[in-house]
Amino acid sequence: MKAEAALGIDFGGTSVKIGLVDSRGRMLQEEHCATSACADLPRWLAMVAARVAACRSAGRRLRGIGVGVPGFTDYERGYIYNLTNVPGWRGVPLAAIMRRKFGLPVFVDNDVNAMALGEYLYGAGKGLRHTFFATLGTGVGGALVIGGKVYRGAFSMAGEIGHVPIRMNGVRTAEGRGGLEAYVGNRKIAACAARALRRGRKSLMTAMVNGNPGAITPKIIAGAARRGDRLALEIMDYISDCLATAFAAVTYLVQPEAIIVGGGVAGSGRLLFAPLRRHLAERLHPYFAERIKVIPAVLGARAGMIGCAALALRQEGTGA
Amino acid sequence: MKAEAALGIDFGGTSVKIGLVDSRGRMLQEEHCATSACADLPRWLAMVAARVAACRSAGRRLRGIGVGVPGFTDYERGYIYNLTNVPGWRGVPLAAIMRRKFGLPVFVDNDVNAMALGEYLYGAGKGLRHTFFATLGTGVGGALVIGGKVYRGAFSMAGEIGHVPIRMNGVRTAEGRGGLEAYVGNRKIAACAARALRRGRKSLMTAMVNGNPGAITPKIIAGAARRGDRLALEIMDYISDCLATAFAAVTYLVQPEAIIVGGGVAGSGRLLFAPLRRHLAERLHPYFAERIKVIPAVLGARAGMIGCAALALRQEGTGA
Repeated sequence: MKAEAALGIDFGGTSVKIGLVDSRGRMLQEEHCATSACADLPRWLAMVAARVAACRSAGRRLRGIGVGVPGFTDYERGYIYNLTNVPGWRGVPLAAIMRRKFGLPVFVDNDVNAMALGEYLYGAGKGLRHTFFATLGTGVGGALVIGGKVYRGAFSMAGEIGHVPIRMNGVRTAEGRGGLEAYVGNRKIAACAARALRRGRKSLMTAMVNGNPGAITPKIIAGAARRGDRLALEIMDYISDCLATAFAAVTYLVQPEAIIVGGGVAGSGRLLFAPLRRHLAERLHPYFAERIKVIPAVLGARAGMIGCAALALRQEGTGA
Repeated sequence: MKAEAALGIDFGGTSVKIGLVDSRGRMLQEEHCATSACADLPRWLAMVAARVAACRSAGRRLRGIGVGVPGFTDYERGYIYNLTNVPGWRGVPLAAIMRRKFGLPVFVDNDVNAMALGEYLYGAGKGLRHTFFATLGTGVGGALVIGGKVYRGAFSMAGEIGHVPIRMNGVRTAEGRGGLEAYVGNRKIAACAARALRRGRKSLMTAMVNGNPGAITPKIIAGAARRGDRLALEIMDYISDCLATAFAAVTYLVQPEAIIVGGGVAGSGRLLFAPLRRHLAERLHPYFAERIKVIPAVLGARAGMIGCAALALRQEGTGA
């Protein structure tokens, strides 16, 4: 008999990734599909049905299905309130629909929660007790794993570091004032670099984007920083310090053993982590500065699938 | 036979309060003693021994003893690293010493953690799942109760809201930069009012302190605000907004159902809570603004004793 496994579905804005994952977090099989090809519920279910059938005909015992979505969910009820970048998914009781259709336990969670669990169990957080996970992208997502379980709080979305204020009198947004994301989201970073170039700052980036500041991306900034470009290094330092400010809030409030950082910018390695650790140490009492770890995520693009499968493998309580 | 009870000891900088508390959180008996009269360990133990003997001779079955101290502790080991305002208590394995002496289970925790548990079980948090407790005094303390248990994090001091940064480029302290406490601690508030008076601002407070700005206290500010004094109201508004900034961080990261506020300034009632709730709502997405509750603590000066006793009544796991 083959080892027990679960399907982990990472439902993103551009692609849906389905992975078959065993109870040790190993990826047995993996398929991707453009979100546009299955963006409505019937086609989405058909696509999952095909994967479930394939697993069953291969003699796999499926323990369940976990789904991670980019939006606002109620984990207890397996309910999707709405998805940020995928229209038509407002008010969907997805777990109930899937349970009926597949006769399997189904768990639906916010994608960042799933990634956090994946990294905790099988990635950078292995062996730790409490971890905070932050992912840097268009926005800044976060999630909290406490004593082996995703902690969702009373409103299902605990760990929302992107809206944690770092400047009391800062930028106003729908989510409040001075929130981290308003300073370090991908577009903000790119816009910040573009502004400096337009103001006439000299930088390797000008040549890298053929003189078009609008074409700057965080990747280009990181590339220029790696080559010692002063402006790019200044921007990396600023991003790190903004992150460090929010991480100081996480350290004092939540005191995880480690803050695990994933997502695009996190790929910059030492370029990000060296100033980030330095700034965080400046922003903490030495007792905590010596103890808290800030470490890169290791599961990369698979964290979502692995974490979703883990929800199903562990049958993490939903009451439902 | 009398109902089961526990001793809760609230070890403060000026007084030590010992309460006998039953399993429903009711205070059966209460005694206070000046800290100066029992500031060293032998006298402190003798004082507790007298209370234990009195309980036993009255036929009480003691379930254990809980101790809350104003300082840095390791709950798991029942160990005191040091106390902020009481010299001579550095590196004391208090739980082990007391267990040996009294033959009872003993639990030693930070005093704010104990208060948070007291309010959660028997006070403002009754019936809730997750609560954050903040106490306003010389400093600003905080603690987190998650699913019925004090959550201490990996470094034993989770919930330290006083050091949560509200201004990225704010005041530098030993604990970091721009931390809440640097803006709203009792002395900061008083100093802020005194500065304004010295600059010549008109205020009822001038008469209330007989022209001596150095004599201003938070109580005087609250009193003047209650009488409609403009300067005092401005200060209350500023304090509220600083608190709201840190509470927004708590809401986004931890998502408790309620933030319970105790300590001196909290006694100002609506004067504090009205602007606090308004500013917090401005600093949150409406979804969370509608849900999070900000409520006054109700156990007052007894929260510590009751919470300490609760640690012992529930025998909250220490592994020790």
